[in-house]
Amino acid sequence: MAGGNDDAAPSPPTKEMAAVALEPSLRRTLISSILGGAGEELAGRRVVVGGWVKTGREQGKGSFAFLELNDGSCLGNLQVIVDATVSPLACLVPTGTCVLVEGELKKPPEGTKQRIELRVDWVLEVGGVDAKYPLPKARLTLENLREVVHLRARTNTIAAVARIRDEMAYATHTFFRKNGFRYVHTPLITTSDCEGAGEMFQVTTLFSIAEKLEKELKQNPPPSEADIETAKLLVKEKGDAVSHLKSSEVSEDEINASLSELTKAKDHLSRLEERFKLKPRIPQKDDGSINYDFDFFKRQAFLTVSGQLQVETYACALGNVYTYGPTFRAENSHTSRHLAEFWMVEPEMAFANLEDDMNCAENYVKFLCQWLLDNCLEDMEFMVNNYDKTALDRLKLVSSMPFERISYTQAVQLLEHVTDKKFENKVEWGIDLASEHERYLTEVIFKKPVIVYNYPKGIKAFYMRLNDDQKTVAAMDVLVPKVGELIGGSQREERLDCLKERILEAGLSLEPYEWYLDLRRYGTVKHSGFGLGFERMILFATGLDNIRDVIPFPRYPGKADL
Amino acid sequence: MAGGNDDAAPSPPTKEMAAVALEPSLRRTLISSILGGAGEELAGRRVVVGGWVKTGREQGKGSFAFLELNDGSCLGNLQVIVDATVSPLACLVPTGTCVLVEGELKKPPEGTKQRIELRVDWVLEVGGVDAKYPLPKARLTLENLREVVHLRARTNTIAAVARIRDEMAYATHTFFRKNGFRYVHTPLITTSDCEGAGEMFQVTTLFSIAEKLEKELKQNPPPSEADIETAKLLVKEKGDAVSHLKSSEVSEDEINASLSELTKAKDHLSRLEERFKLKPRIPQKDDGSINYDFDFFKRQAFLTVSGQLQVETYACALGNVYTYGPTFRAENSHTSRHLAEFWMVEPEMAFANLEDDMNCAENYVKFLCQWLLDNCLEDMEFMVNNYDKTALDRLKLVSSMPFERISYTQAVQLLEHVTDKKFENKVEWGIDLASEHERYLTEVIFKKPVIVYNYPKGIKAFYMRLNDDQKTVAAMDVLVPKVGELIGGSQREERLDCLKERILEAGLSLEPYEWYLDLRRYGTVKHSGFGLGFERMILFATGLDNIRDVIPFPRYPGKADL
Repeated sequence: MAGGNDDAAPSPPTKEMAAVALEPSLRRTLISSILGGAGEELAGRRVVVGGWVKTGREQGKGSFAFLELNDGSCLGNLQVIVDATVSPLACLVPTGTCVLVEGELKKPPEGTKQRIELRVDWVLEVGGVDAKYPLPKARLTLENLREVVHLRARTNTIAAVARIRDEMAYATHTFFRKNGFRYVHTPLITTSDCEGAGEMFQVTTLFSIAEKLEKELKQNPPPSEADIETAKLLVKEKGDAVSHLKSSEVSEDEINASLSELTKAKDHLSRLEERFKLKPRIPQKDDGSINYDFDFFKRQAFLTVSGQLQVETYACALGNVYTYGPTFRAENSHTSRHLAEFWMVEPEMAFANLEDDMNCAENYVKFLCQWLLDNCLEDMEFMVNNYDKTALDRLKLVSSMPFERISYTQAVQLLEHVTDKKFENKVEWGIDLASEHERYLTEVIFKKPVIVYNYPKGIKAFYMRLNDDQKTVAAMDVLVPKVGELIGGSQREERLDCLKERILEAGLSLEPYEWYLDLRRYGTVKHSGFGLGFERMILFATGLDNIRDVIPFPRYPGKADL
Repeated sequence: MAGGNDDAAPSPPTKEMAAVALEPSLRRTLISSILGGAGEELAGRRVVVGGWVKTGREQGKGSFAFLELNDGSCLGNLQVIVDATVSPLACLVPTGTCVLVEGELKKPPEGTKQRIELRVDWVLEVGGVDAKYPLPKARLTLENLREVVHLRARTNTIAAVARIRDEMAYATHTFFRKNGFRYVHTPLITTSDCEGAGEMFQVTTLFSIAEKLEKELKQNPPPSEADIETAKLLVKEKGDAVSHLKSSEVSEDEINASLSELTKAKDHLSRLEERFKLKPRIPQKDDGSINYDFDFFKRQAFLTVSGQLQVETYACALGNVYTYGPTFRAENSHTSRHLAEFWMVEPEMAFANLEDDMNCAENYVKFLCQWLLDNCLEDMEFMVNNYDKTALDRLKLVSSMPFERISYTQAVQLLEHVTDKKFENKVEWGIDLASEHERYLTEVIFKKPVIVYNYPKGIKAFYMRLNDDQKTVAAMDVLVPKVGELIGGSQREERLDCLKERILEAGLSLEPYEWYLDLRRYGTVKHSGFGLGFERMILFATGLDNIRDVIPFPRYPGKADL
């Protein structure tokens, strides 16, 4: 800046100054692009690939090594050959080793199963492996893998699930975008309760306030009773002094000085007394109840169980919208179908009745199935070979056949006449269908997805629209083979008076729902929506049995690793 | 099922049974598809449209009405003309009224600004509006609108933001998919702390346990001291009886019967005593500390502040991955740039160094800007006309110009020589750049986005890779005009020993990071990533000033509406 004008902004640095020595980029070719499609046509091409050794073995008396290399871009491994002249082999072959290598793609000799392999002439990077690698070559059970969530994505199964999950997320956004829906982020922290039911997690900063106070009191201990007594004595002394001066003939200045000392002593005492009362505990009101005025939001706040009510506010403005995000249940469920944290897809459509809702749900599920057939065949075949022989057939069936649609009343009639199976739960009009009934309908009676609609109002939430029969509501559930209920939805009650009545009938008070009622007061619109449990859909697609294996970091009672 | 074979599954219902009377679908044409593109060519076409009346007025002495109808699919309104012979007009014209109407699209008379309008011959649905509609025709300030989050999406501004937000979300998924990244859902509830710093929200069920107990004790009151005394007396009596029998000559059966009564009395007493001790409060250990054994996860759990550490586990398996989800900060920030709940995009790449990281960040931001130019021009022009004249120019600049890249050391040198501005904060090597410095670099010195890299290790997180100079780490921040820091990222420390040392240096203990260290023990890989605050990016794009206006349901201290 020498010689520069003081008023001018400094000029940008010169090219030389901006030029900086950075490490050469580690850019590499994905194994999926080598193994997928082109195949042997790539022979002769030079590439850099990186990945983790699935299995490695030294051959030819240690003169070269075969590595099966996987980089997570696809299920398949690339066969990599490294000569001992290129690199010491012993550190390359252990399972789990990470390598970045450069070389030439070659067509392997006739009679080998690979279509293409890599002859390495340069080992760029090696990340070694401790002898106690927690993922041995022998297959661990899915249950055991749940104890190593930070490494299990390196297994074929969990990596395939991750790719399928990613594809289904993208398919979801694509489907809704194609159909004119906007993605809306409903809040995770909420002060509303979607159904006046369902256990919720509370979100709070009260514990940390108590902890901070505890720490502070340790560093800076509170006064003892003796300190308080001393301070009280001081107040008394100063008080006496003031009285004494007042009764004597002294100047006003002297009295004021004495008064000021008394005030100081009183302030000191009250500060000590205040501090003496401090207890490192959750702030309480005088009646012993928790004082949420000290909490972050100055009220109780919870993790959402559904974004539906909130997303309705956007449907009543933008038309077709959807949420896709995490939802929470603090239920003490230890089943293979429940998680405390899971992802839900919740579309909501203005100007849509129950039929539109069913159509949308059917189209969406079909779209997801077709997407997996089009984009995930290798991973789906892995599922078929290892977990569920029918997984691919199920996708084909669902993507091609119209779903059956029957009313709840019809469903009950059908189930009441079943004679080849004893149900554990009673079938009776007015009682919710149990999982065994739902699966029987879809797996045995219809052998395809079934949409059951018009449920008794007594077993459904207050916001579902009352039908003209006054007994049922415009609700629908989509039942699919393998998992039973996949989707639950309804037309929402758009009539202000009916909605108020239903809220009160449900034993709830109107006040917390005033904002929801406002949507009916101001330009109310017939609207409908549904929720799809994303992990349930992955179970349905993959044929896996336990929901803890289809989410990267499962949360359930007693478990929240990482 | 009459006459059916008992062993056979019931046959599917007949067509008649399955056929059900459902309301005709409310399917409609989106106004965006009428106003966008085709224009007058649609004249003569019959359509059903639905939406909310922005403004309505009766004309021709009440013989017809003009309605400006908006359905949220785009910023523009469709002009709708309804004759009084078709429907009473008074209930149609109030702002906020919802209508579903059918009619014919017509070319309006010469000289009107509309290119197409709708002549209605059928009003299918009307959702009226209360006289006290909270969104008057006069524009409310954005601040006022925050008090009606459930209705504000009906305003032009918030609807435009919602569409821009949706487009940026889809652009994000598209960009990463194109570049071979997989979307990974990192957990929201976590037992890890990303940086050993930053205030976190705690997630708990302890309050509800206490509340449930309180309710239970109200319904079923605990024993009084008198009840306990009575029970104690009974134990004494029964004990005396046993002693008496033992000293008498009675049969063993009689003694046993008496012993059994004593046992019962003792059990009763201990149950009463147990219940007597129950207090409806947060479960505590004997030392007064909170007993998290009773909490849902049997330990303290928090809302995530970043998914980075967890997503690294997937990068070290699948290669290129990213998260896109909500993150939380319990900081008492009341600024226009902070939210307690906000969305972050966090890509993480295996086999990538800091240069690759910078390239990815630059390409991603450019892609978002270009996407908005290609897909959101109408909404962006609205922002230019109403909020920020430079918003579109900024998108064009950023999407077309290479970002400047300078080291932190160079940045400090440049700022130290600035003479035309007095900074409030000190500029000195080793201190973090303040927002005013960042904005000066990008807005005044370079007039385009700037990436600053290689920061002093003392001001950056433990997981950032130590450079060879031992003084700086391979970190980078992307600074953009209007908001300053938009992205923060780094190459991660992949060397086990260095990482351990950095954790300890940061005053943290190794134990909670053992899983993170495992990624370095088993096939470690050079990897890099960054985080982009999604709402900051929307501020940057739209030119709006307050982050509370670019997320549907803002959360900040004292505020969590809905």
